[in-house]
Amino acid sequence: MTGPTTDQTPETAPSTKPAATTISFARGAPSTDIVDVEGLKQAAVTAFDADPAGMTGYGTAIGYVPLRRWIAEQHGVPESHVLVTNGSMQADAFLFDELVTPGAAVVTERPTYDRTLLGLKTRGGDLHLVTLEEDGIAVDEVEQLLRDGVRPVFAHVIPNFQNPAGYTLSLAKRRRLLELAHEFDFLLFEDDPYVDIRFSGEPLPRMLELDGGADSTHVVYACSFSKTVCPGIRVGYLVGPPALIDRIRVRATNTYIAPNMVAQGTVFQFVTGPRYAAALETVKNALAERVGLLDQALRTHLPQATFRRPDGGYFLWVSLPAGEGHDVARIAAEAAARGVAIVPGTDFLLEGGENAFRLAFSAVQPGDVDEGVRRLAAAIEAARS
Amino acid sequence: MTGPTTDQTPETAPSTKPAATTISFARGAPSTDIVDVEGLKQAAVTAFDADPAGMTGYGTAIGYVPLRRWIAEQHGVPESHVLVTNGSMQADAFLFDELVTPGAAVVTERPTYDRTLLGLKTRGGDLHLVTLEEDGIAVDEVEQLLRDGVRPVFAHVIPNFQNPAGYTLSLAKRRRLLELAHEFDFLLFEDDPYVDIRFSGEPLPRMLELDGGADSTHVVYACSFSKTVCPGIRVGYLVGPPALIDRIRVRATNTYIAPNMVAQGTVFQFVTGPRYAAALETVKNALAERVGLLDQALRTHLPQATFRRPDGGYFLWVSLPAGEGHDVARIAAEAAARGVAIVPGTDFLLEGGENAFRLAFSAVQPGDVDEGVRRLAAAIEAARS
Repeated sequence: MTGPTTDQTPETAPSTKPAATTISFARGAPSTDIVDVEGLKQAAVTAFDADPAGMTGYGTAIGYVPLRRWIAEQHGVPESHVLVTNGSMQADAFLFDELVTPGAAVVTERPTYDRTLLGLKTRGGDLHLVTLEEDGIAVDEVEQLLRDGVRPVFAHVIPNFQNPAGYTLSLAKRRRLLELAHEFDFLLFEDDPYVDIRFSGEPLPRMLELDGGADSTHVVYACSFSKTVCPGIRVGYLVGPPALIDRIRVRATNTYIAPNMVAQGTVFQFVTGPRYAAALETVKNALAERVGLLDQALRTHLPQATFRRPDGGYFLWVSLPAGEGHDVARIAAEAAARGVAIVPGTDFLLEGGENAFRLAFSAVQPGDVDEGVRRLAAAIEAARS
Repeated sequence: MTGPTTDQTPETAPSTKPAATTISFARGAPSTDIVDVEGLKQAAVTAFDADPAGMTGYGTAIGYVPLRRWIAEQHGVPESHVLVTNGSMQADAFLFDELVTPGAAVVTERPTYDRTLLGLKTRGGDLHLVTLEEDGIAVDEVEQLLRDGVRPVFAHVIPNFQNPAGYTLSLAKRRRLLELAHEFDFLLFEDDPYVDIRFSGEPLPRMLELDGGADSTHVVYACSFSKTVCPGIRVGYLVGPPALIDRIRVRATNTYIAPNMVAQGTVFQFVTGPRYAAALETVKNALAERVGLLDQALRTHLPQATFRRPDGGYFLWVSLPAGEGHDVARIAAEAAARGVAIVPGTDFLLEGGENAFRLAFSAVQPGDVDEGVRRLAAAIEAARS
């Protein structure tokens, strides 16, 4: 794991190649053309007109009150279960600061989001990475850890269209995880930023709901508007047991008094406004088209690769045949030299991943997908010789 | 110190008295009528039109690039010296996380901003509170601490219209503090959110400038747009030595990827736009009027009180004659019962302050000032009996 640099514009653009010609499968972000900028602008105007004092005043750490109420309604919980933050990464950071003391055991998926791994390691967490299967985390492996005496403060799970793999946790496994959480008394941290950008298949119930929604005791749920509205608006939230949410509220107050009211007021007007449904369809249709093209291109140009086409989200995970001595760092370098960007599998693991990489299809224009995979296939070939 | 709850709308409004009739000298925030809501709305529209990708994309932890550049120009430093954050409290938190390890010595003013004290105490800082005089921190006392062997990681100073006292650090003391910082090799944390809302007297040079601006090695400077634009926009920044700024950038990346691009893009358009100068004049004129009325009312209704009328900012500090057994907790309670809110002096100190309180004039309508002080005088009288 080389440090997370994968989910946004690079802080320093490589100076040696013209950005215009690089095709990036690295950026876990939507291309600007599928963001409803006009709708956001209108939402901001509406928000300033509707609630000038709420938009411009300090507010409090629980977030913009009407947005918090709307989120609570969406999840069928009282408002006291909800805290709205400056993006869900900030929510994660508060939760980790609250629960992950040095040496605290934590279960995560393997592979998982590189920034999650870094945040847990930085706080001295005792990480237990559990195999991620195509239907989600290997629950038998989780159970074995628990029976062996591991007592995690939480298990971190990305249930829908997981980052980096694109896999979705099955209903049976959701239920089994909840049983284990109750039996061994640990929290499930249900980290769910992609749930609303499903473009095929049927939605599954959240573990938060399966645990009783308003009566849930063993789930803390995180979500974000980065994928449904836009990343630059930096609004995310937590839903969880009110005592825990209140401890995090105190932490948030002491950190920043309040999150961004202008941004949260704008999100509130956007998601309750007339354009939201169509804006979300635009995103989902674009992602569905892009993943379809990527699926086809991989089958054509990289027939030796294995991957599972996801039903939503931004990512898919590609494995090359094991035992052939693939070196993904070299593949990534060869790819960069040919004008295509990927993220090595090693970034999402504490060890291993040399024959794997993550492809993000969220920011690639449809006309570039095939050419990008062609270049990648050439890079893989070059890296072998 | 009972915990900071003083600089924004209370999280839970007292339920026993009708808020409409309470006059609050507690809220360190502007009243909405002096915020240019129309200008902010226009700035948001301009920002979405001018830079849709920059507003909606992730951005990076350094902040919105054009705003960062503008701030660097204002301070005459390269952009690498600047980091823009979600409000300056968040900047403080990053700086404290970086520098205040348990047991680290820190110098602050006495009294000082309650949230600063809490943030330093929470991190285990070894706090040395130094007398605040009408021309700023007692530099002889700082020097004595240093000669006695105290080795602070930084000295926290609010140089202009200090919170809670309203005092301003003299030029001579600014220079002397810098000499000490160089001699004993500690940082000056120049915390300066009120600098641009001076309504009388001449501005003094920042210690950042006196230390060489772009060549400064011993000053880290914090400022905010909460007072000049509005609090709900949550935009603040740090200027400091690039190596330190870069360490904080990494910390910020790992906490939230990036701060709010929509808010920062809106601030950039507002402060570089056609309405900013007039908006700032509106704020300064309103504050000047309010402080004048408060000065007059205090002289009329509380002749026994001592205070210094400030040249800017939001606050002034009122002391009642010592040795008369004043109990500011009781005064605050009697005041609340009469529909006037103040913050006890004890909130801004580790010990003492029972005969003092902070009055914020930023959110009080001109027509309410005299009546508020009348009620306060009655409360002080009632608390004695």
